[in-house]
Amino acid sequence: MGFERIAIIGLGLLGGSIGLAVKECLPGAVTTGYDADPATRTRAAERGLVDHVHDSAAEAVRAAQLVILCVPVGAMGAVAVELAPALPADALISDVGSSKLSVARALAAALPGHAVIPAHPVAGTERSGADAGFASLFRHRWCIVTPPEGANPAKVAALAAFWEALGARVELMDPQHHDLVLAVTSHLPHLIAYTIVGTADDLEGVTQSEVIKYSAGGFRDFTRIAASDPTMWRDVFLSNKDAVLEMLQRFTEDLTALQRAIRVGDGEQLFDHFTRTRAIRRSIIEEGQDDARPDFGRSDHGG
Amino acid sequence: MGFERIAIIGLGLLGGSIGLAVKECLPGAVTTGYDADPATRTRAAERGLVDHVHDSAAEAVRAAQLVILCVPVGAMGAVAVELAPALPADALISDVGSSKLSVARALAAALPGHAVIPAHPVAGTERSGADAGFASLFRHRWCIVTPPEGANPAKVAALAAFWEALGARVELMDPQHHDLVLAVTSHLPHLIAYTIVGTADDLEGVTQSEVIKYSAGGFRDFTRIAASDPTMWRDVFLSNKDAVLEMLQRFTEDLTALQRAIRVGDGEQLFDHFTRTRAIRRSIIEEGQDDARPDFGRSDHGG
Repeated sequence: MGFERIAIIGLGLLGGSIGLAVKECLPGAVTTGYDADPATRTRAAERGLVDHVHDSAAEAVRAAQLVILCVPVGAMGAVAVELAPALPADALISDVGSSKLSVARALAAALPGHAVIPAHPVAGTERSGADAGFASLFRHRWCIVTPPEGANPAKVAALAAFWEALGARVELMDPQHHDLVLAVTSHLPHLIAYTIVGTADDLEGVTQSEVIKYSAGGFRDFTRIAASDPTMWRDVFLSNKDAVLEMLQRFTEDLTALQRAIRVGDGEQLFDHFTRTRAIRRSIIEEGQDDARPDFGRSDHGG
Repeated sequence: MGFERIAIIGLGLLGGSIGLAVKECLPGAVTTGYDADPATRTRAAERGLVDHVHDSAAEAVRAAQLVILCVPVGAMGAVAVELAPALPADALISDVGSSKLSVARALAAALPGHAVIPAHPVAGTERSGADAGFASLFRHRWCIVTPPEGANPAKVAALAAFWEALGARVELMDPQHHDLVLAVTSHLPHLIAYTIVGTADDLEGVTQSEVIKYSAGGFRDFTRIAASDPTMWRDVFLSNKDAVLEMLQRFTEDLTALQRAIRVGDGEQLFDHFTRTRAIRRSIIEEGQDDARPDFGRSDHGG
């Protein structure tokens, strides 16, 4: 049932981490890989992210049983077209994109007749490129699999088993619901972080040097997220526009309410709100989705 | 020139950390302390946050050369009134509050004739209470000292030397400018984090369990900040209202611009913005204000 030949297209943070995780967790499998950037291919070969780095996507997938596309979501369709001629008829195609409705459509259009089951491991760091990946990235994280209607249950199960072998927990979800959930838990947070870091970077009256020096007051947490890959995130916002704008609308309403509470001096409303938001962090730590140590454990290191 | 008898009023995260840091860095000094909460006093004595825990603020300051108020900024005036009768005439009064203009006014009004030099160590974690403090909290962090007009330079220098002894770097600043800078680097980030965590907690269509499970996509970073002490933050927003509302206005303008870029599909604007915000994180890491490891180093631990 397991995959013995796995092709990874795109060898950045996600693709590289999958390659390293397969090596560690599925030592019987052979991995092939490709990246559009020649420097990334060279570095991927040096780090051994996959067993064989190829010079085209078509070569990389020629013998694959499972193909995982790890490119920005806006590039999925074009990559799929590129490798389609060489794709074995019985290969399973999946991906790691952060929005799923647009990816499902792009892959279905580019690969008619092929088995496509999109997926999204909810894991990552702010780093990108061939040096960013590591084998444990998916451990204790959730991977959301979004099978299209009529997907072969055996193939869905095989993909789920693959992610579980890499340490992830798997949940099946409708792609539309995925896009709404991730708009809250990932896309809106990134948009907000990108915004506030931009705001702080461009103020009269406060210098950039001051922003940097006093960032430990909270701002620095946002800069981590706002250091994420710009191409990837541009594509996420363009491909999940409706859900992001809907969540942004809700956020803006809530921000306006707190703004008003500050303006009129309503301490009770502020206190009640700030008390309510404490509970959710406890739940996230209990569920194993974050480090329980204060300050993410940063203060343990030369604090 | 150094202080030999230091009183700490308020034994939570900041007060407790000062007590522990003095023990480690200034072993010749004797510390006294008080907290309005009897349970905090008991726990402070058990942890040895200060050498002597007293049952009133007045008793704690009776022999002090330096008194540091570590209570929410809205409580500063009342605490100062409480301890005023017992305060030695030559004692220096300081604090650790996150807004400085309102604190300067409250302390000057409550302690006429006394030397008051407010300060703000830009350091902290999301924890609060008598168990939260640790000796290295101020190491490599900045402490902003905001001397009032006409402050005695020798006392300013002594307070600066005190914070440097605890590992901090010291910068002198006008209180009004402090409040503007911190509105950007600390207060606005907290307000935004409190807002988005509240938004995610209260949605139709997405369950709280989903928000928690998929929080590793970015949301969990915000929950750390939104777990900070509600009383402290209520007081910060009420006491630094003007600067916070001004920064919020700037943030909202920038958010509206990005919202429009998403709506009209302007990928170039998004890409340019996301590229610009990357640079500021590099500067923060170079300046020693954050951990260079990806994901704040969280992934090193069972990630």
